This record gives sequence, structure tokens and C-alpha cells, in this order.
Amino acid sequence: MSSVHIPGLVADARAGRQRAIARLISLVEDESPHLRAVAAALTPHTGRARVLGLTGPPGVGKSTSTSMLITALRERGQRVGVLAIDPSSPFSGGALLGDRIRLHDHTTDPGVFIRSMATRGHLGGLATATPQALRVLDAAGFDVVLVETVGVGQSEVDIVALADTTVVLLAPGMGDGIQAVKAGILEIADVLVVNKADRDGTDQTVRDLRTMIALGRRGTGPSWRQPIVRTVATTGAGSDDLMSALDSHHDWLTTHGELETGRRRRARREVEEIAVRELRARLTNISGGDTLDRLATQVAAGELDPYAAADDLIGPG
Amino acid sequence: MSSVHIPGLVADARAGRQRAIARLISLVEDESPHLRAVAAALTPHTGRARVLGLTGPPGVGKSTSTSMLITALRERGQRVGVLAIDPSSPFSGGALLGDRIRLHDHTTDPGVFIRSMATRGHLGGLATATPQALRVLDAAGFDVVLVETVGVGQSEVDIVALADTTVVLLAPGMGDGIQAVKAGILEIADVLVVNKADRDGTDQTVRDLRTMIALGRRGTGPSWRQPIVRTVATTGAGSDDLMSALDSHHDWLTTHGELETGRRRRARREVEEIAVRELRARLTNISGGDTLDRLATQVAAGELDPYAAADDLIGPG
Repeated sequence: MSSVHIPGLVADARAGRQRAIARLISLVEDESPHLRAVAAALTPHTGRARVLGLTGPPGVGKSTSTSMLITALRERGQRVGVLAIDPSSPFSGGALLGDRIRLHDHTTDPGVFIRSMATRGHLGGLATATPQALRVLDAAGFDVVLVETVGVGQSEVDIVALADTTVVLLAPGMGDGIQAVKAGILEIADVLVVNKADRDGTDQTVRDLRTMIALGRRGTGPSWRQPIVRTVATTGAGSDDLMSALDSHHDWLTTHGELETGRRRRARREVEEIAVRELRARLTNISGGDTLDRLATQVAAGELDPYAAADDLIGPG
Repeated sequence: MSSVHIPGLVADARAGRQRAIARLISLVEDESPHLRAVAAALTPHTGRARVLGLTGPPGVGKSTSTSMLITALRERGQRVGVLAIDPSSPFSGGALLGDRIRLHDHTTDPGVFIRSMATRGHLGGLATATPQALRVLDAAGFDVVLVETVGVGQSEVDIVALADTTVVLLAPGMGDGIQAVKAGILEIADVLVVNKADRDGTDQTVRDLRTMIALGRRGTGPSWRQPIVRTVATTGAGSDDLMSALDSHHDWLTTHGELETGRRRRARREVEEIAVRELRARLTNISGGDTLDRLATQVAAGELDPYAAADDLIGPG
């Protein structure tokens, strides 16, 4: 185990030293032997950052929009951390790399920290690494943490669920796309953005979204009316409207106690994920390894069904 | 609990009755109270089907290729089951629906059964439902089960890992796409198909793939040389070459004992998934619910780190 002085790293991160922040994220991302010590050292400093999620289908201008938001937040004097989530797909690595380049405008600004999170490993990878990286940025004192995903799968949607406020981006001229995304959008969007709003078809897209919102009103709880904001992220047009929509949602969350409720839900999920991972590790590492191999052989041979095998493995509940 | 006569259903499914097959898949997919009884009843009849996985980026002609493969397999007199996996993304529902229409040519053939698997639920949904649906088709006596996915995320790649042989489809003119998919393809493809091979750029795509294969040779174990097949799925051109590549891979698997190894690996993963799900359910349902809420509140308040909370929840290992 290499020598790591964790309290020193945390202090450096809180002083805004980017290398220390990057190092801490690597420590939690890689599940290093220091992971638990890092998590413990971060804890007293967490719970202050406002977390914004940003997602939408490919091609709507997510990275440009992230860049526009960073600029607006920096003008307010806020420090901004960004976690850009790359999905683990072997089919989409390249396109993203190009997108990320747009964020490079901000890389020389010490008030901005950008981290691209990617994994080709198991599903659990991003789902557990992202909340921990978010804790690092929170503890390092960033006022806002932006979690940006490409939005092409359930795992990305799950990660957006980490946010206090989720922004879903669309663009005009997606044709039937709007209909296709309907169900999902209404579930996860707190703020809807029609980007590239200088293009033909913007009015129609906004009208379609309005109709969908009217039809899909969430039935229970205090009702937040999802606003639709028009932006042209490449020029910065609509930036003020977007910021104001984000502020309104934050006020609404605070007024209705939903900020705390959401954060407890997030913590609950995080603890549960860690616990399940730990149980899974025990299953395969300690006594389960050989037993599992024996049971798998019986299942493969058609001598045992997989549910009976799982019962054998973990014992009575 | 509605009345279900499971041995009767299994007998009907094995006699080729499509309604019984569909009903059994619904029972395992929905995690009905009958799930375990169904799994047990299927087991003695499993282990015979050859499982083919088919994946690739959007737009390469996966459904047309599936249709072509069904035709070729039917000409050999083989019964074919198809599981068409729709990802849970709120952003891609619509496009897929259109693709599926191409499979409708085969819906009147009693030797073909096609099931579209989709979920908007939790990540675990498809990962556990697909192997069970596969067991139904295997037990129902289908000679070949095709698992087709849209290939846009890790969960789809995981599902393809269920297959004895995985076919990755590409098309010419994807430009830098080929480079982007490089790493993933070499990991999961047993057979590479360049579909739409009547288009310009086919030769270049095949050359690029050859170079990538040469650079990316897997280092360990008996070496299978991934063939590259050219097809035009809409006309059926290249169908014989593809079938012959699939047969070669199946022979290779059998000769090297890799068929059994792969199936044991698949069973192991299946049992582990079920065990982890069961452990997760115990965590939240039995005593864990209240404890988890209390711990989550402490974590959200920055009083406890999530790893310590997880330790509290599950106790010492």
C-alpha cells in the first residue's frame, strides 16, 4: 500500500488544489484500500453542494450546455465541479471524447474542476463510483456539482437520480423522437430545455412538451410545474432563463422540504448499494467461491434450477 | 394467486404451443409467486439450445440480420426462439418499435417464437429476466435461441455474454465509429459481420477490422480467429457465409471444451445474480428497512460515512 496522507489530501482539496481533488476521486473510484478512510475523512465536510443533473439524447448539445451553465455559475462567483459520465458501452466511446473538448475552455479556471467518469468494468462501477466522486467535490467546497450523462440507458438515468435538480435537454427537429422519449422525460425532468432554439421547429417542440406535461402531471405530493426553457448554448442565449428556472426549483425544493427528502433518498440508495456490493463480495470471496462453482456446474447440467442453487448458497432468510 | 398448472404449461410449451411459451416467459419475467416452481419444472429440459447473441450500434441492420438468420435456420429445419432486448432507456423506445416490425415476417411460422423484452424498471430487471426467458425457450425445445440487443450499454453487453456465440454487426461508412468501437468489439465478438456490404466503403471497413483483430489478439487460452463476414441482410446475400462462420465457432467451442466452460460461467453468474437480489430484498424487507432509513438520515446529515453505515447495516463479514 503506497503512502497516502489522507487528512493532508482533504485539506489540500478544500483549499482548492486540483491535484488533491483528482487524487481523492481516484482513490474512491478505484476502490483503493484507502477508500473507507477517505470516505470517513470527507464526511464532516459534505452536504453543502447543490447537485445538478443534466441529460438528454445524443446530439442535443449537452456539453455545450454544461459549458454555458459553468460560465453562468462562475459569473455568480460560485465554484463548479463537473462529473461527466461516459457510459460503459463499447459502441460510444469515440463520440463522447469529441464532446468533451468543448469543456476545455474552463480547464484553466481554478474555480472549475472537470472529471470524466468512465468504466468498461461491471455495471456496479459507475453506480458506486459516481456518488463517491460527488462526495469528494462536495467536501472540497464546490458550490455546485454538475453531473452530466449521455442519457442512453437506465444506468445514466439512475445516476441523474443523484441530483437535487435534473435538467433534460432536447432539440427541435427530433421528429418522432419527442414522442418516444415522452414517458421517461416526465419521470426524471425537473426542468426541460429546448436547446438549439434558433432552429426551425422550436415552437412545435415546445408545444409538444407542454401537451405532454399537461397529460402527464404527477399525481401525488406537492406539485412542481416543470418549466420549459429555450436556449442556444453555443451563443449563451437563454442562459439567464435557465438559471432562473434552476433557482426556482431549488427554492421550491427548500420550501417543501423536498431537498432533505431527496438527499436522504440518495444516501439510502448509496448505503444500500455499498451493502449489496459487500454482500456480493462475501458471497464469492469467503466460502461461496467453491460452493458457487459446484452449484453452477449442477445448474449448467440441468440438475438444479438457479433459484434452488441461490437458496443453497445463501442459506435461509 | 391465480390458478396455474405448471407441469401442463411446460408440456404445452414443449409441444410447441406458443401461448404456453409466452405465458411461461411472463411468469418468470414478472417474478410471479410461481417463479421458483416454473424454474424447477423447466430444469430437466434445459441445456440443449444453442444460444446466439447479436449486437451492434444502432442503424447497422440488426433486426434485418436476425430475420435473415431465422430464415437460414428454418431452412435447416431448426426451431428458433428470439429474445429481442429493448434497453430501459427513456430515450430510445420509439426507434426500436419500428425495427421490430421487420421480424413480423416470421410471426406466422409455428417454428419461430419472438419475444420483445423491455423494462422501464430497475437495472436488475433485464439482467435477471433474460436468462430466465432463455431457460423457457431452451426447455421448450428450440434448437437455437437468438438474443438480439441494441448494443448501447453495458447491460446489453452483459446480456450478450449469455450467448455461446456472439455476433457483432457493423456497417460501412460509420467513419470514425469503427475506431471508437474497437476495444469493445474485440472483447465480445466471436464473429464480425459487415452488413450493408453492397455500399461504398465496405472494403475499407473490412481492412480496418482485420488490422484491429491483428493488433488485439487475445493473449491466453486456445485462440479463436474471429472471422469477418460480409452480408446484405435485406437481400440475404452472405447468409451462407454467416451460417458457416457460426458453425465453425460452434465446432471450435465443442472441440476445446469451451461450450461447457461458457455455460458453467453463465450459470454461475445467474445463480450469483439471484442470490444477490435475494440478499438485497432481505436487506430492505426484513429488519433492514427502518435501520436503513436511520442510517441514511445520518449519512445525509454528514454525521456518518456511507461505508460505515453499510457495515452497520449488514454486520461483520
